[in-house]
Amino acid sequence: MATTLNATATGRGVDAAAAAARRVIAALVRAGDISGADMTAVADRLNAIADELEAAAPGLRERLVNMWRGDGTTRHDPVTGPENPLAPPLQYTGRPDGSIEAVVTLDLPYQGPPSCVHGGVSALLLDHTLGVANAWSGPSGMTAELTLRYHRLTPLFEPLTVTGRQVAVDGSKIRTVGSISAGGRTCVTAEGLFIAKHPPRPR
Amino acid sequence: MATTLNATATGRGVDAAAAAARRVIAALVRAGDISGADMTAVADRLNAIADELEAAAPGLRERLVNMWRGDGTTRHDPVTGPENPLAPPLQYTGRPDGSIEAVVTLDLPYQGPPSCVHGGVSALLLDHTLGVANAWSGPSGMTAELTLRYHRLTPLFEPLTVTGRQVAVDGSKIRTVGSISAGGRTCVTAEGLFIAKHPPRPR
Repeated sequence: MATTLNATATGRGVDAAAAAARRVIAALVRAGDISGADMTAVADRLNAIADELEAAAPGLRERLVNMWRGDGTTRHDPVTGPENPLAPPLQYTGRPDGSIEAVVTLDLPYQGPPSCVHGGVSALLLDHTLGVANAWSGPSGMTAELTLRYHRLTPLFEPLTVTGRQVAVDGSKIRTVGSISAGGRTCVTAEGLFIAKHPPRPR
Repeated sequence: MATTLNATATGRGVDAAAAAARRVIAALVRAGDISGADMTAVADRLNAIADELEAAAPGLRERLVNMWRGDGTTRHDPVTGPENPLAPPLQYTGRPDGSIEAVVTLDLPYQGPPSCVHGGVSALLLDHTLGVANAWSGPSGMTAELTLRYHRLTPLFEPLTVTGRQVAVDGSKIRTVGSISAGGRTCVTAEGLFIAKHPPRPR
């Protein structure tokens, strides 16, 4: 029995707009300055959309209270958030053994070395994954220390398996591990020390 | 005497489109589902732009050769790239003492805890910064190991100073440190081990 651990996209409203923005981001990096597109016109149209969104936006304080409502999963983070165009987004499955897993394929916006995932992007995905693994299987909290080891290059354009698992809890100290693998080979491993503390949500 | 170490935005072509896409990303996360904007129409307009960009795009192989041309700074990475809407973007200044520095203010797309930078985003920025610090002052290469220590929460909405400095070179092993601070207080520190090796660029 598997459980989805993060907010899922509704396909409507801001989720649909964020999904479309993800397509624009990928298409721009695929295009660069050698595509047949009229980039001046694209910039004008994107700026017009931004102008309208900014004019219609709620106040920052109102939005913060809104986005942190309740005590559960949020919808805006840069790894899984259906409302955040930066998020690939990852979709985690929680397993009865306490581990979690997501499968994701990344494109050019996430590139470091040629045709490979940026090491810092792997760090971003793993920091978040370890945090979700904590929430799934035991106490969770904030990252105090995170160590990444890069065993081989992580490829773009093919499915990556991202995993996390809480391994020890000692008072408020939580130790969690995770990895990114491709085609059954481990590319990056992570070890995190977390402190069981959560900053208050804005109310 | 200071030197800018990364590609800078031209304000034209794909750079202008990427800058406009950054505004759209921030405005969407600021909006969520409580803004007055017609998100269905916004999604339709963004999908139309993505359709046109995808139809006009060069082949992936052609784009890879193009984006990795020459041996110098690239324009597409997710931290500094003027062509990449994911990049905040950071602008590094190199100092004669071998250190580098960037100042950046981050908004809601990069959020982890309420009103604070996601720990994984700090890891992404620092991994890249250590790599650029290596290129500025000595041999550079690929990340083998990266350790992040989180000393206090890193705030959104105010200027962050991101620094990096190569501290030792022993054969092909390179050791580099860096930090993120806000208002003169250190929020995150990083230590990296790099191997002086570069994967070949596509030609």
